Amino acid sequence: MDDEEAVLAANAEFYRAFEAGDAAAMATVWSTGPNVACTHPGWTAIAGRDEVLASWAGILEGSAGRVLCMDPVAHVIGDAAFVTCGESVGNNLLAATNFFAREGSDWRLVHHHASPVARLRERGAARWRPRSLN
Amino acid sequence: MDDEEAVLAANAEFYRAFEAGDAAAMATVWSTGPNVACTHPGWTAIAGRDEVLASWAGILEGSAGRVLCMDPVAHVIGDAAFVTCGESVGNNLLAATNFFAREGSDWRLVHHHASPVARLRERGAARWRPRSLN
Repeated sequence: MDDEEAVLAANAEFYRAFEAGDAAAMATVWSTGPNVACTHPGWTAIAGRDEVLASWAGILEGSAGRVLCMDPVAHVIGDAAFVTCGESVGNNLLAATNFFAREGSDWRLVHHHASPVARLRERGAARWRPRSLN
Repeated sequence: MDDEEAVLAANAEFYRAFEAGDAAAMATVWSTGPNVACTHPGWTAIAGRDEVLASWAGILEGSAGRVLCMDPVAHVIGDAAFVTCGESVGNNLLAATNFFAREGSDWRLVHHHASPVARLRERGAARWRPRSLN
């Protein structure tokens, strides 16, 4: 598995934990280092692992419904990487950026930024319509 | 100037170019490498330097009014870094993440993700009210 594949696997694990409401898995996905932040839709950034995981605990306690990650694209820059992707969370369509750092042999999430999508790009419209919304 | 200061200086230059409508400076801010992407408010990600700069050309041709970067916080991870900050663009309040990569002695922007802020966090509310909106 090369770096790009490993980053995409870590990204997929984030969405698996999100959909499953699995707080333990979510805690493992995130970095244990100092560079942890999260920008939830409609919010400004939260900083720090404890505060970020607390925000996710609240989200995971609810029922998000289906969580789909769409069209993830990974960009690896040394020991850091970012993934751009779409998210279908219940009936909401979002755009996300996930930033990972290499920690030992793992890639851990250091920052998640998700925001509502107001309109689809014409060129990508077909790709961005999740099956459940057809 | 340490890495964190250098990243914050590159971040400030992005906002200076944005407010000034300076397309040449904006082109210099962005990486010339393959890892260029941008998620504008309400949109999904655009990929590639040419397409990203074309999207900015459209923005810079308009008059954004005052552009303020608020509370930037830099996180450096080897040869990559991300900055979380608020943006006041005209009358719009946004949350942004800017991802930089070290290229030679410079830090260049590889990804910008901005999204509308629907509500202010109570704890940070005072910090997030730009002077011009008082």
